[in-house]
Amino acid sequence: MSRFFSAKYANLTPYTPGEQPKDTQYVKLNTNESPFPPSPNAIRMAAEAAANLQLYSDPECRDLVKKAAEVFQVAEDEILFTNGSDEILNFAFMAFCDESHPVVFPDISYGFYKVFAALNGIPYEEIPLREDFTIDPKDYCGIGKTVVIANPNAPTGIVLSTEEIEEIVKSNPDNVVIIDEAYVDFGGESVIPLIHKYDNLLVTGTFSKCRSLAGGRLGFGIGCKELIGDLNTIKYSTNPYNINRMTMAAGVGTLMDEDYIRKNCQTIMQVRQWTVQQLKALGFVLTDSKANFIFAMHPQADGKEIYLRMKKKGVLIRHFDTPRLRRHNRITVGSKQQMEVFLEKLNEVLEELL
Amino acid sequence: MSRFFSAKYANLTPYTPGEQPKDTQYVKLNTNESPFPPSPNAIRMAAEAAANLQLYSDPECRDLVKKAAEVFQVAEDEILFTNGSDEILNFAFMAFCDESHPVVFPDISYGFYKVFAALNGIPYEEIPLREDFTIDPKDYCGIGKTVVIANPNAPTGIVLSTEEIEEIVKSNPDNVVIIDEAYVDFGGESVIPLIHKYDNLLVTGTFSKCRSLAGGRLGFGIGCKELIGDLNTIKYSTNPYNINRMTMAAGVGTLMDEDYIRKNCQTIMQVRQWTVQQLKALGFVLTDSKANFIFAMHPQADGKEIYLRMKKKGVLIRHFDTPRLRRHNRITVGSKQQMEVFLEKLNEVLEELL
Repeated sequence: MSRFFSAKYANLTPYTPGEQPKDTQYVKLNTNESPFPPSPNAIRMAAEAAANLQLYSDPECRDLVKKAAEVFQVAEDEILFTNGSDEILNFAFMAFCDESHPVVFPDISYGFYKVFAALNGIPYEEIPLREDFTIDPKDYCGIGKTVVIANPNAPTGIVLSTEEIEEIVKSNPDNVVIIDEAYVDFGGESVIPLIHKYDNLLVTGTFSKCRSLAGGRLGFGIGCKELIGDLNTIKYSTNPYNINRMTMAAGVGTLMDEDYIRKNCQTIMQVRQWTVQQLKALGFVLTDSKANFIFAMHPQADGKEIYLRMKKKGVLIRHFDTPRLRRHNRITVGSKQQMEVFLEKLNEVLEELL
Repeated sequence: MSRFFSAKYANLTPYTPGEQPKDTQYVKLNTNESPFPPSPNAIRMAAEAAANLQLYSDPECRDLVKKAAEVFQVAEDEILFTNGSDEILNFAFMAFCDESHPVVFPDISYGFYKVFAALNGIPYEEIPLREDFTIDPKDYCGIGKTVVIANPNAPTGIVLSTEEIEEIVKSNPDNVVIIDEAYVDFGGESVIPLIHKYDNLLVTGTFSKCRSLAGGRLGFGIGCKELIGDLNTIKYSTNPYNINRMTMAAGVGTLMDEDYIRKNCQTIMQVRQWTVQQLKALGFVLTDSKANFIFAMHPQADGKEIYLRMKKKGVLIRHFDTPRLRRHNRITVGSKQQMEVFLEKLNEVLEELL
C-alpha cells in the first residue's frame, strides 16, 4: 500500500479470482467456463470487428441491445450491457445501496458481493444458509434491505423457485431485489418475466457461462426502465464506452445462435448428471446443483487435500478455504472427456487418501 | 430516476460522449479517433483470440504487461491495464482522492474529471486556464491537493514541458500528481521516465488515439509499484477480468508494430500542420495544438453555428456549449482526404455565414 492510498480502502480485501495458470496444460475445472467454443457467428463477427477498432464502440450498444431485447423478451430500455457481470453488480451496489439502504445476501454465495459492499462503504449483513446449504426464502421476505441472491446459488448450485423469489420481491416493495442469474441456463428458471410486474426487481446475467464468452467479458442487467436508467447514469459517470466493438459483435453473434447455445446447455446437464452418478458411487455427498458446476464433499477425505492432489495431477478444481466450505470442492462441469480425466485422477487421489 | 436510486447520486451529471451517429456516413472528426486501421499484428491477433473466448482472460494481463514494460521502459509492476483510460482515471480518483485529499484540475480540460470527482464524492477545485488557454504551472506548485492535468490538454492541445510538470510533481511530495497523456504521441513529451524519480507521479495513457484501438478499449497507468499496487487493489475489488482476450491480444500486437504507429503519428502531425495553415488562411485563430485535434475559432463566425452547419453537410466536429468554449470547435485531425472534405465544407459554411 502506498502512503497515498485513501484511508477508506485501508481494510479492503479484494476478490481472489480462480487460478488462471499459464505454466501447465491443466484440465481446467475451476472457473466454470464452458468446454464449448463460442458460437460460429460470435467468432466470425468478433473477428470481423477487429479490423475497425480505430473507431470508438457505440456507447449505447444499440445493435446488441436490440437483439438481446428480442431474445430476452424485454423492451430495449429494460436492458443494459456491461464489461462482464461483475460490472453490472458493482453498478447495482453503487446505485441501490448506501448507508441508509444496507444490503443483505447469503453468507455462502458469490464471494464478490461483500467486496462490492466494502468497496462502496455499504453496511452489509450475511444471512447464514441452512445446514444443508439451502436458502430459506423467509429470511429475506419483508427484510426492508437491498437483497442480492444468486440463483442458482454459488458454489452450491441450489435453486430457489420463481414463486419463492417472487415472494421476496413482492414483500420488499421499497427495496431493490437483485437476482444474479449467472448460472440460470443449466436447469434453473429465469425470473426475467417478473420485471414487467415489479419495479424493484433487477436481474443480472452473463455471457460467460452457457454463451461461451467468458474471455469476451459481457454481462447485463434487466429491470424496469427506471432502474436501468439509474444504472446508465452510473455507467455514463464511470465508463461510457464500457463494451468494446469485438465483444459487442460477439454478443450479437451469440444471440443469433441460440440453438447452438441451448444444445450446449443440454449437453452440460447430461454430463452433470452422469458425473454426479459417478461421484455418488465413489461415496461423495453432493448438493442438487442446477448450475454448470458440482459441489461435492467426501465424508472420509479432506477437501483441500483432494484439491491439492488433483492439481498435482493436472486437474484444477476450486477449493474455498473457509470454515463451512473447506470440506467441499466446486468442480466445473466440462466436456465428457474432461470429466473422464477428472474421475480417473480422482480415483487415484481417493486410493492415496483412503 | 427510480425511487430506489441512492441519494448520493441525486445530483450526478454523467459525462456526455461525442456523438456516435449510425444514420449517415459522416466524415467523423468529433472524437479524436485515428484515421488509420489498427496495426496488422493487432488485427490478426485479436481475430485469432475470438476463437477461444470460452476461457476467461488473464486477470494479470501478463503477456500484455510484459510487452508494454519493454516498450515503455518500466518494470512489470509499474504498469496496469484497464478497460480504456476512463477506467484507470476512475480508479485513480477512487484510490488517491477523498474528503481529506481534494482534487484540483484546470477548468477547461477533459470533461470527465469533474464527473469522477462527483461520482466518488470528492471535493474538487477547477483552476481557470489563462486567457490564452494555457495552464500556469505555478497554480499547481505546492498546492497540497491531488493534481490532474491532461498533457497535452484537451480540447486545446497545448502542452506543458517536462520541466514544468516535474516542478509540479516535486513541489507536491505528499500528493499524487496524475498526468493524463492520452494525446502525448503527436508532438508532446511523455513524463513516464520521471516515475523512477518520484513516487507520487501517475501517468495515464490510452491505446485509443495513436494506436488505433479506440473501439478495443485499452488504457493504462504507469507509476511506482506502490501506486500500481493500490490501483490493483481497486481493480480486483471492482472488475478483476477487466480486459477481454481480444483486446489484450490487440494490445500485444500493436506493441509489436511500433514502427507503424510512429509513422502514423508523423502523418497526423504533417496533416495537422497543413490543416492549421489552411485554417489560418481562412481567418481562424488556433491554439498551438500538439494533439491529434485542432482547436479553432473564427472571429466573425459563431462556433455552434459552424458545428451545426458542418453536421448538416456531413462533417462531424465537436462543439462544447460552455461560456469559455462556445466560440470554438475541436476538430480531429483525420486523413489528408478527410481534411480536404472538411475544408471544402468549411469554406461553404463560411460563405454562408460571412
